[in-house]
Amino acid sequence: MPTPSELARAHVPALYAYTPGLQPTDSGWVKLNTNECPYEPSPRVVAAIQEELTHGGARLRLYPSPTSAPLRAKIAEVHGVTPEQVIVGNGSDDILNLLVRVFGDDRQSTGFTFPSYSLYPVLVAIQDGGTEVIEFDRSMRLPVDRIAQSGARAFFLTSPNAPTGVGFTNAELRAVLNTFPGVLVVDEAYAPFAEENAVPLLAEYRNLVVVRTLSKAHALAGMRVGYALADPETIGLLDRVRDSYNVNRLSQVAALAALSDASYYDAIIGKIKRTRDHWAGEWAQRDWFIYQSATNFLFVEPRNAAGESGPAVAESLFKFFQSRKILVRAFPSHALTASFLRISVGTDDEMLAVDEAIQAWLTNAP
Amino acid sequence: MPTPSELARAHVPALYAYTPGLQPTDSGWVKLNTNECPYEPSPRVVAAIQEELTHGGARLRLYPSPTSAPLRAKIAEVHGVTPEQVIVGNGSDDILNLLVRVFGDDRQSTGFTFPSYSLYPVLVAIQDGGTEVIEFDRSMRLPVDRIAQSGARAFFLTSPNAPTGVGFTNAELRAVLNTFPGVLVVDEAYAPFAEENAVPLLAEYRNLVVVRTLSKAHALAGMRVGYALADPETIGLLDRVRDSYNVNRLSQVAALAALSDASYYDAIIGKIKRTRDHWAGEWAQRDWFIYQSATNFLFVEPRNAAGESGPAVAESLFKFFQSRKILVRAFPSHALTASFLRISVGTDDEMLAVDEAIQAWLTNAP
Repeated sequence: MPTPSELARAHVPALYAYTPGLQPTDSGWVKLNTNECPYEPSPRVVAAIQEELTHGGARLRLYPSPTSAPLRAKIAEVHGVTPEQVIVGNGSDDILNLLVRVFGDDRQSTGFTFPSYSLYPVLVAIQDGGTEVIEFDRSMRLPVDRIAQSGARAFFLTSPNAPTGVGFTNAELRAVLNTFPGVLVVDEAYAPFAEENAVPLLAEYRNLVVVRTLSKAHALAGMRVGYALADPETIGLLDRVRDSYNVNRLSQVAALAALSDASYYDAIIGKIKRTRDHWAGEWAQRDWFIYQSATNFLFVEPRNAAGESGPAVAESLFKFFQSRKILVRAFPSHALTASFLRISVGTDDEMLAVDEAIQAWLTNAP
Repeated sequence: MPTPSELARAHVPALYAYTPGLQPTDSGWVKLNTNECPYEPSPRVVAAIQEELTHGGARLRLYPSPTSAPLRAKIAEVHGVTPEQVIVGNGSDDILNLLVRVFGDDRQSTGFTFPSYSLYPVLVAIQDGGTEVIEFDRSMRLPVDRIAQSGARAFFLTSPNAPTGVGFTNAELRAVLNTFPGVLVVDEAYAPFAEENAVPLLAEYRNLVVVRTLSKAHALAGMRVGYALADPETIGLLDRVRDSYNVNRLSQVAALAALSDASYYDAIIGKIKRTRDHWAGEWAQRDWFIYQSATNFLFVEPRNAAGESGPAVAESLFKFFQSRKILVRAFPSHALTASFLRISVGTDDEMLAVDEAIQAWLTNAP
């Protein structure tokens, strides 16, 4: 009998799995490596889940709404679109996967920038599809013409970008939309922390897809809810490849409750932005280069006590952080990112711990 | 600019979405159309979710275990296998989708029987893959030789079968495994209600995959948890195409709690089987043909007051049920199934309501 690998499609055994940020199972870590929200979700979230659990959890025995109908209606209301322009996913990763499956294969390639969300190439590889990778230069500004001429059928743009934190303007997005003859997927995981977002452009551009998540600003990474806004025709295509019960009951009610408490989230988003800007200012005074962040993290190029920066310096600080049980993210595999560390914005106490670690690293370095 | 449909892969706009059983949003229905459990989940399920919600839901802000590690270990313990032989999914539909993506495409076809779970052809069509469909005859016994010679790379077998309810013996499964040179996926959604299951065969057959769900016997359809047991090599292949955070925090703890309360589930499964066998006996006395069920539903061929059966009779009873707010499932599109209705086993009260409706239908029919 052939082995499972011999029976698999030829490209599958060679795939490499996406490496998510470390999720430590022991306690005591300052966890600033996956851009989770440092504050708990709205109290309405727990209340809504409790309500769904009444009568001994009897409702859990029933399948959820296949289309997440009440949540879909709420998302439409929040963004001023129709429910037919909304699709809900098991995290925005689910949505990104559906987009790749609808638009990409070995005959029509999928595009994205480098650096950006490192899941995109993994999803395209699973699909055995072609890729068009557009590298930023050190400015990290949007290379509009190169995207327009990429030849990709769908182009994924993390906006604001991760891991750099750089925000793009709607003027820049319009320049892409006016010239790129494919589907532009604007992955707005961090948009609640930015000055501008692409939702108003949906009314003008039929080939625009805006992807959102509740994992970052809404403090619900553990619940796995994301969504896309797009033309109803695009939503219909995504629905054809979507799992019919992709979002469970408790995630649907949790997300609905979160989106119904804008004032709570406005407050914590405001707090996170103030914390972000404070520490960006502090570390810039150490002569560290930091991209201006429109997100809930800082992409910093640390300098050691000798004034040096570079991959070895970044690695040294990364390891020093780890020795103090502080987790951040490093991107050592490319020259554009290897000198940097990405630090999620945490609570005031967590950021003080980071700053104290930096001071100790500067003092103790050989 | 091209339209979204013009930009999509050529087969996608022509896909038809899977039609899940109706999930009515108004109350008062006797809902026996999707084989949900009529009893609530173990009290440990709600308690475990409550525990995960403490501290204002603060844990929800953090990503879940990417591999569902504690749940995976529990599943391994329950079935006497290693965690490396287990993969957890967002419902077993997630697992089935991963299996199709690993083993099937336009060059290597995927097989299944007719009738069986109607999602399989939908998943293969999304993948633009080839299919090999093996039709049962009216006996609904396993056509071992035709499966062995199907030429499929992976063959999906709903065992016990849906919608017929017929159970297959391990002797029959061995006969397939000894002769079919591909991956045999035994979809055991209903195995807790059957006399035998394929888990003991895993030790002998490297190309066997057993798929389970917590949506039926475990009363957790609303939480979306399923899993597969297989050779570690097969699990490794599935993991390469799996979404890295496919199961949310509350579903992980809910499933772990459910699998830790075997005595509760033994009791409700026993009750469901007694209810099933009681009503199978009652309706057989009306000279209705009913396949012997190894599941939590009955596939019945109703006879009207004139002693007639057939598609028109089944449709008449289906509509009469609906007029009394009783939902069951009809399969009118094929001669093997069109004369039948599938009735999930409900509570005693629900089954009495069904029986009363049958009596009224027999009395009132023209």
